[in-house]
This record gives sequence, structure tokens and C-alpha cells, in this order.
Amino acid sequence: MSDHKTVVRQGIAASPGYAVSRAYILKREPYVPERLSVADPAAEQERFREAVDFAVNEIDGIRQAMEEKLGASKAEIFEGHLLLLRDPELLDTVVANIGEQRLNAEYALLEVSRMYIEIFEGMDNELLRARAIDIADVSERVMNRLRGLPHVDVSAWTEPCVLIAEELAPSDTARLNPDIVKAIVSEAGSRTSHSAIMARSLDIPAIVGAGPGLTDIPQGAEVVVDALTGELIVHPTEEQKRVFTEKMERYESRRQELRKLKDLPSVTRDGHRVELAANIGKLEDLEKALDNGAEGIGLFRTEFLYMDRSSMPGEDEQFGIYKHALQRMEGKPVVIRTLDIGGDKELPYMSLPKESNPFLGQRAIRLCLARDDLFRTQLRALLRASAFGNLKIMFPMIAVLEEWRQAKAILLEEKARLIGQGVEVSEELELGMMVEVPAAALLADQFAREVDFFSIGTNDLIQYTMAADRMNEAVSGLYQPCHPAILRLIGMVAEAAGRHGKWVGMCGEMAGDAKAIPLLVGLGLHELSMSAASILAAREAVRGLNREELVPFAKQALSMGSQAEVEAHLQTLHRL
Amino acid sequence: MSDHKTVVRQGIAASPGYAVSRAYILKREPYVPERLSVADPAAEQERFREAVDFAVNEIDGIRQAMEEKLGASKAEIFEGHLLLLRDPELLDTVVANIGEQRLNAEYALLEVSRMYIEIFEGMDNELLRARAIDIADVSERVMNRLRGLPHVDVSAWTEPCVLIAEELAPSDTARLNPDIVKAIVSEAGSRTSHSAIMARSLDIPAIVGAGPGLTDIPQGAEVVVDALTGELIVHPTEEQKRVFTEKMERYESRRQELRKLKDLPSVTRDGHRVELAANIGKLEDLEKALDNGAEGIGLFRTEFLYMDRSSMPGEDEQFGIYKHALQRMEGKPVVIRTLDIGGDKELPYMSLPKESNPFLGQRAIRLCLARDDLFRTQLRALLRASAFGNLKIMFPMIAVLEEWRQAKAILLEEKARLIGQGVEVSEELELGMMVEVPAAALLADQFAREVDFFSIGTNDLIQYTMAADRMNEAVSGLYQPCHPAILRLIGMVAEAAGRHGKWVGMCGEMAGDAKAIPLLVGLGLHELSMSAASILAAREAVRGLNREELVPFAKQALSMGSQAEVEAHLQTLHRL
Repeated sequence: MSDHKTVVRQGIAASPGYAVSRAYILKREPYVPERLSVADPAAEQERFREAVDFAVNEIDGIRQAMEEKLGASKAEIFEGHLLLLRDPELLDTVVANIGEQRLNAEYALLEVSRMYIEIFEGMDNELLRARAIDIADVSERVMNRLRGLPHVDVSAWTEPCVLIAEELAPSDTARLNPDIVKAIVSEAGSRTSHSAIMARSLDIPAIVGAGPGLTDIPQGAEVVVDALTGELIVHPTEEQKRVFTEKMERYESRRQELRKLKDLPSVTRDGHRVELAANIGKLEDLEKALDNGAEGIGLFRTEFLYMDRSSMPGEDEQFGIYKHALQRMEGKPVVIRTLDIGGDKELPYMSLPKESNPFLGQRAIRLCLARDDLFRTQLRALLRASAFGNLKIMFPMIAVLEEWRQAKAILLEEKARLIGQGVEVSEELELGMMVEVPAAALLADQFAREVDFFSIGTNDLIQYTMAADRMNEAVSGLYQPCHPAILRLIGMVAEAAGRHGKWVGMCGEMAGDAKAIPLLVGLGLHELSMSAASILAAREAVRGLNREELVPFAKQALSMGSQAEVEAHLQTLHRL
Repeated sequence: MSDHKTVVRQGIAASPGYAVSRAYILKREPYVPERLSVADPAAEQERFREAVDFAVNEIDGIRQAMEEKLGASKAEIFEGHLLLLRDPELLDTVVANIGEQRLNAEYALLEVSRMYIEIFEGMDNELLRARAIDIADVSERVMNRLRGLPHVDVSAWTEPCVLIAEELAPSDTARLNPDIVKAIVSEAGSRTSHSAIMARSLDIPAIVGAGPGLTDIPQGAEVVVDALTGELIVHPTEEQKRVFTEKMERYESRRQELRKLKDLPSVTRDGHRVELAANIGKLEDLEKALDNGAEGIGLFRTEFLYMDRSSMPGEDEQFGIYKHALQRMEGKPVVIRTLDIGGDKELPYMSLPKESNPFLGQRAIRLCLARDDLFRTQLRALLRASAFGNLKIMFPMIAVLEEWRQAKAILLEEKARLIGQGVEVSEELELGMMVEVPAAALLADQFAREVDFFSIGTNDLIQYTMAADRMNEAVSGLYQPCHPAILRLIGMVAEAAGRHGKWVGMCGEMAGDAKAIPLLVGLGLHELSMSAASILAAREAVRGLNREELVPFAKQALSMGSQAEVEAHLQTLHRL
């Protein structure tokens, strides 16, 4: 039995699941070596070279393991680290300083790495600034070898653990191995922050926004994570460990239960079909989508192709990616959204002006229409790929009809040009738009005449309709998906689509919320696109519903005054 | 005849009117005195003291003139300047440095003033930072005396001119004398920036956002300002001067024409009354409102009471101001909006956290509910003032019913407490809300049951509905007041109010746009509140309309697809 006092911390449940394991605290303690004078500089240089070689071997080993387990793209970051350790400018300076100033290797390494880190941190380019982190990472690895300490690397971790940190960047989260890291708990973050989305896509239970002081938890402490309620228990009692291990097992067996729905159709009890699709950001996500029974891709966020690199992806590169996705989905619908950057998503190689309110700024289609060179490149890649599957293209952030018409005209121009060059373009290609700006939802009846489909992006639609930044904790209480104002906008879009014989889907967070699904089905949505992990529970929900009784049920919700009333209304449904 | 080439510059018309005058370029050339060694430090100290005395007299003269012409509050800034020139710390250091280091007075002044400016600029408090500007201003005045140059002071200027500058802060604009400064032209700014709003309230023609290079125009050059089209003509031809002088005269005679409407009622041809009220920010604006025939105050922006000072205004101070406004309006309605800070409006003495998207952040009622101490102080002042006139209180940025109910409950609590203390509170007091968040407009039918009135704030409503920051030039094309999505929201609010027998007004920029008024009257608005300068033209517009034919006319606009279509529709009205 443990002597430690049991402590419960409350955070925000960001990715569902349980874990009963030990804490691995990610906290980089600053180490400042003394400046010493060494008697034998040549031996010290040798000691430094040995540490570098050791680090090279270590990184290479991790790289290989990653490549085997998770594919080449996840291993790329380590290729970068190896290149740094082979960079003569950095190494030779350390070796020279040891020789000339008779410095100890630790101090010489510190001095040189600090200088490089400062230089990169000061650069006006996000990609180069990111190199500062890589240099810090690699230097720490060499430093640890010099000090005789083992290097700590989350992605190379082999013991099961719960990772606890102040904050995780999306790139940190991407490197985690779900077989080892049983859960993530962070001091900062919100349910819709990118690293929370990433945790859901990796299927790692996660609690975010648990507040300061987490990293003071002792390394290796026993912890229980309840990422359904957002509770973290530190030093659990034996009883708690037993209870949560049982919960975890029940949760797992429920997942097994859900897996049986993988190949069953998504139809309500009265035979109404609702297509359940997956949101993806990269080709790797396709497997998980199919594995969870996705009937299509409802949102392919192409901005990830543009991020974490030093130049724009070319037409052929994009074509290859889109074609692969279409082929892998074997005729199932794939809705690809054109570039949605700006807002909180920046590209280091495009210097976009700083904006006071980036969410209300020149983002997505606004930027693409202003910079149509990059838009045309993407459209040509998409048009060429359209021959290889069931492609649907959609434009993000359309607010007014003029934008829609202009974007469509550019697409038709590129299509005509490609056909003129003898390139095959699908005749079935559908063209739609995201509905995420309130103006577009309000005028859905006008847009419905011109589009092939709508996809409602609730994350943005809610934040604009409520005038509340979903990333800002001070106003996050106003982010209310089931608020009647939001439901009315969704209803307007669905009704307009229905009247004009077009289909309407949803690809925001709300689409994957099993609680909201009865309303969405009742309002008349044809497709729901969500993170792969939510699909099977959504299918179960859909299969338990009776669409005929949901139409009046949803209509009642539209006449309510608050989200709280709608939630109470949803409770009555479960008693039907 | 002038030898100079005529140049036309296009900017944004920000405050209407014409001017034919000479350019006064506000451009502070940097002057760096040489460091010299003086033979007679005592004489140099005397020369410095004389220059300070001269500056004191000069400032005092300006202060008196300002006080007589524009009232004590406009003269306050010069009181501050006088205090600086009597500050022994600053003066004694200069005198001591002249004596000890045998420095020339110019150099000694530069050194000391620079030090103080740097100290204040580095302070983490906006108010103290602003002192840096005052020190620079005062030092420049003394320096000019030392150099034998006249000091340039816009507010003390006596020759008619067109003021041309890179940018004007609201406080600069506030100090201008409209009798002297015939127009303002600035390189930066937008129609809705605070200094543009200020120019409209001072009735000075203004062009903003005219682009870089303006301050290279020669000092004293002849210029023509057309602040209806946004054109600035530098070195106009004789013909141009004649044409624009004529236009200016016609414009003036039209203004005289409009003045005849001052005491006439605002009724349509078929007898439908539309109340035309004024937006004000300070007590001084009341006179202008009454002078322009305002039938009430439709928006008293109380945040100006909180700005440009070092601490929160107390209950008694606020009570005095509200009471004065109510008494001066003699029973006419006065709608006072509770504190709307946050967003782009900060208070130096309240450290609000920086937000990534301040327009979508914790502003207005959200902040007041989170910090209800300051909200209660304001509500008590308002409730006490209610006994002295026709007060209506409204809450800004209400998004959901819970906020409305919570704000109202706090008000009722304070009311009960005051009544318990024997304080008189009006029984007629109406309580309403701004509709500026799309969610509130969409749910107007729910709110209409609980409020006494609505006031639609179009500036914010448009920016949220379009998801476009109205201050961001890259997306300002999406700021479309007559877009059908906006008109539909206005229509929803008016219809809900009508159905529940409540009145509905509008207090955004749109309410003062004579072009939009037929739509607003047709949609059923009861009150329009605008800058005082727009009231008479609005009255003329209202008196020319036939409400009965505008109802179907506005309904048609709701079914259109774009602002362009609505504008074409409005053109047909003029031909009716």
C-alpha cells in the first residue's frame, strides 16, 4: 500500500478512455554545467565525439523502430535529428572550443548549442524557429550521455505510462506511441485544441486544461485517468485502482461490442440511411477510418499537406496524395476541402500579415481567392485525381454568393484547360461548400440552387454565431452546439438543401457527438463526418433511432430558449 | 497660378464635407542637438529657465483659450503639460547637468527628456506610457524656444487649414478646433476607426486610409478635400478650386436646407412615426444632438467615462453624469448602454488578459457578469439617475438567455437594495438589450418575451454574421450592411418585437445611412439612432417615404441573393 495521499484533479475530458498506470512527467529540468578547465583537451574531445556517436546510434535505432511500427513519415523527425548530429559546423565548433580553451565538453556543448538555439529562435520563420527545438533535443541527448544519464524520449519510451506535461504541441502528440502512452494529461489546452483532436485521432485517452502544478506529481507515481469525466487520480487507493480497472475493462468490452457494427449499415429503425464518414488530415488516417467502418471521407483537411514543411506542395505531389486517397476508398465518397489556412493555422513559407482577430480575418477561401495561384495548383491536382474515385470538392468559409461563384468559375476554368490538354476529369465530380459562416447558413436557400451539397462546419459556425472564440477559456461556456440558435441555422440549411434536392452533411465536432445525433437526424442531415473513433458509437446511435418521430422532436427543440432546455428535451427521448 | 503639378489621391470618405484650403502637414522632424561645452554655465541655466517660463506662458494661454472656446474638459490636457513644466525632478536635473558638465541647454534637455520618455515608454500601463507623449510634446516646446523656432500646436492653430498626418489618435482628433481645421486627411485608418467616428462627431470633413507618402506634400500647399468621394487634390487648378468651392457652397446651402427640418416630426408620408435619436459618448455630445433635432439618445456609450483615466469612475461621479444627461434631455428617451469594454477597447487600470481574437472574447456583458463589482456600481448609478428623466438601460453583447436573465437579476437586486435604503428609482425604467450577436437575433422571439426593447447593433452584428473583422482591410469588402443575411436577421428581430408588442431600434452605423433607411422602415424598426450629424438627412429621408409600400419592398429584398441585388432594388425605389 502506498503512503501517499490520494489527490484528485479535474480537467476537461478531451479523448475518451481510461488508464491505470504510472505517471511519466515530461518536465525538462534546466541543467547548467560548470565551466571547467581540463588537463587533457584531446581526451575531452574524444569523450565528446563518443557521446555524439552514441546519440547517433540511439536516434538511428529509434528511427528504425518508428519506421517499422508507424511508417516512414512518423520517422522523419529523427532523420532531421541525425542530420543535425552530422552537421560539421555545430560539431567542429564544440571540438575547437574544447581544444583552444581547454573547456570541459559539457560546457563547450552548452555554449555552442545555446548560440545556435538563440539564432534560430530569433528567426522570422516558423520552420527555422522549430529547428531550435530540434537542436535543444539533440544537444540534451548528447549532454545526457556526457553526464552518464539515460536520455528521455517519449516516442522511444517502452514502459506503459500516463504522460503528464504542461502542454503538448500537436507535433509532440503525433510522435506518441499509443501502445506505450496509455493516456495524456496536460495542464493547458481545450477540447477543440489541435493536440486534443490529435489525441482523439490516435485514440489515446486525454485530459486537457487540468490546471497548473501537474508536473510536480512525482515521476512514476501511480495514477488513474478517467478521460470520460476528466478526472485524474494521483496515488489512487487500491479500491480506486480496482474500480477503474473494472471500468476500463467494461469500456474495452463495449468497444469490442461496437466493433461488431463495423460492417453493418447506418440506418434508422424505420429504414432511413445516414452516411457516417470520417474526418482525415493525412493518408495514414485512411486505415483508421476504414478500420472503424467509415462509409466515406466527409472531410479531408488538406492544410496538413501544406504544414510542417518549407515550401508549397506542388501539383504532382498533391495529385499523388488525392489519387491515393480516392483509390484506397474504392469508390466510397471522398469530400476534399480546399486549403483552409489563416486563422490559427499559419504557413511558415507564406508570410501572411498578422491580424488582430485572425478568426475574423483573411482565411480559407478568402485567402485562396486573393492568391489564386496556389488555389489553381490545388484545383488542378484535385481535378486530375477525380478520375480515380468518387471525389467531391468543397470550399471552406464561403460567406457570400460572389465568393462561391468566383471559386466555382476558377475551378471550371482549370477543368476546361485540363480537358483541352487531354487530361481525364470525372464527369461525376460534385462541388459543394462548407457552411460555417452564419451569413451562408442564413442564405442557404440561395446557395442551394447553385451547389451540389453542403457540409456544415459546426466548430466555426458556433463560434461566429455565439461571437465566442472556441479557444478562449473565458468564453468557452458560450460554445453551445445544442443551442437553439445553432439548431435553427442547421435546420435552415437542411431545409434549403431538401427543397432543392441537394444533400447536406456535417463535419464539425458536433457530428461525432452521439447525444446530438437524434437532433441532426431529425433536422434532416444526410451525412455525418467525424473522427474515426466516434463512428461506431454513432452507428449504434443511428440504428437505435426512429427518424419519423425525430422530425417533430427536433422541431420542438427549435422553439426552445436555451441549450439547457434542449438537453433536458434530449433526456426525454431516451425515455421514449 | 501655381507651377506645381496637380495630384489626386484617393482615400476613404470618413466624415462628409468639402474643404478648399492649405495643407498643414503634421510631421515631427527629429532634431538632435550637438553636445557643446559652454563658457558660462550660469548664463546657460538662465537661458533654459527663460525657455521654460516662455513655454509655461504659451501653454497657459492655449489652455485659457481652449477653456473658453470648448469647455474645461478639452483644456485638461494642457493642465497636465503645465504640471510637467513645474515638475522639479525634471527641471532640476537639466539645470544641474548644465552646471556640472558645462553642457549646452539643448543637449542637457534632450538627454534628460529622453531618459524620462524611455522610462515611461517601458511602463506596463497605458496611462503612464501616454505620459511619454506629453513629455515629448512639452520638451519640444521648450526646445523650439531654445532654438528660436515657433512651436507648432494643432489645437492652437489660428489659420484655416487641412490637417494632413500619417495617423491621428482619437485624442489628437478631439483636440482639433473645427473652426480652424477645415478637414483631416490621414494615411492610415478606416471608416469605422475611432478617429473617423470622432471626426464625424466634431463635424470635420475627413478622409482616412489615403495611403503612404501624404506627409511629403509641401507645407502650405493648396489642397481640395472632397470627403464625400474620398478625393484629395493637391495643387488644384484654378478651375478645380472654383468647381469645389461651388460644391462646398451647395453642400452648405443643403445643410441650411436640412436645418429647417430640425423641429419637424420624423413621420413618413402615410403618418408612420420613426424616432430619430443620437449616439453619444460624452455629455458634450448632448448639445450637438439637440442642435441636430435628436428626439432622444438611442445609445449613450458609457465606456468613454471609463477610458483615458487612471481609475474606475465611482458611483457618485457616474450618477452625476447620467443625471445631467437625463435632465438635459427633458423627458426625451435616453438609452444608456452598460459598460462595453474588452474587444478593441482596453482600460489601463484593469489588467485584462490578452486574447487571440478579442472581438470573440470576454467583452461587454461577459466581462461585467464575470466582474460584477464594477457592473453593480454602474447599475446603482443608473438606477439612482432614473428618477431624473426618461431612462432606458440596455445590456451589450447578450448572446444567450441566461446572460440576459443574470444581468437583469443583478439589476433587480440593486434596485431592491436602493429602494430599501429609501432611494427613489423610476417605476417607468425600461430594460432592453443590444442585438449584436447572431445567436441573439436568431432567438429574438425568445428574448422578446422578456425584454422591454431591442437595439440592433449592426457594426458587430455584421462582423460576426460575415465572420469578418470590420477593422481588417483585407476582409472589409465582406462588411455588407445591406446583405440579405443581415436584413433577414434584422427582420427576425423586428418581427419578434412586433409580435410581443416591444419596440426595436438600431444604433449601428447602418441606422444613419439614408440609403438603408427605406429598408429599415419597411422591416419595421421603431427607432434609429445615429451620429448627430446624420439626423437631419435621415429625417428628410423618412419624411419622403411611404411606409405602406416599403413593407412588401423590404420583404422582396429578403429573398435576394446579394447586397448588389439589394442595392439595385433600392435604385428602383427612387424611381417609384
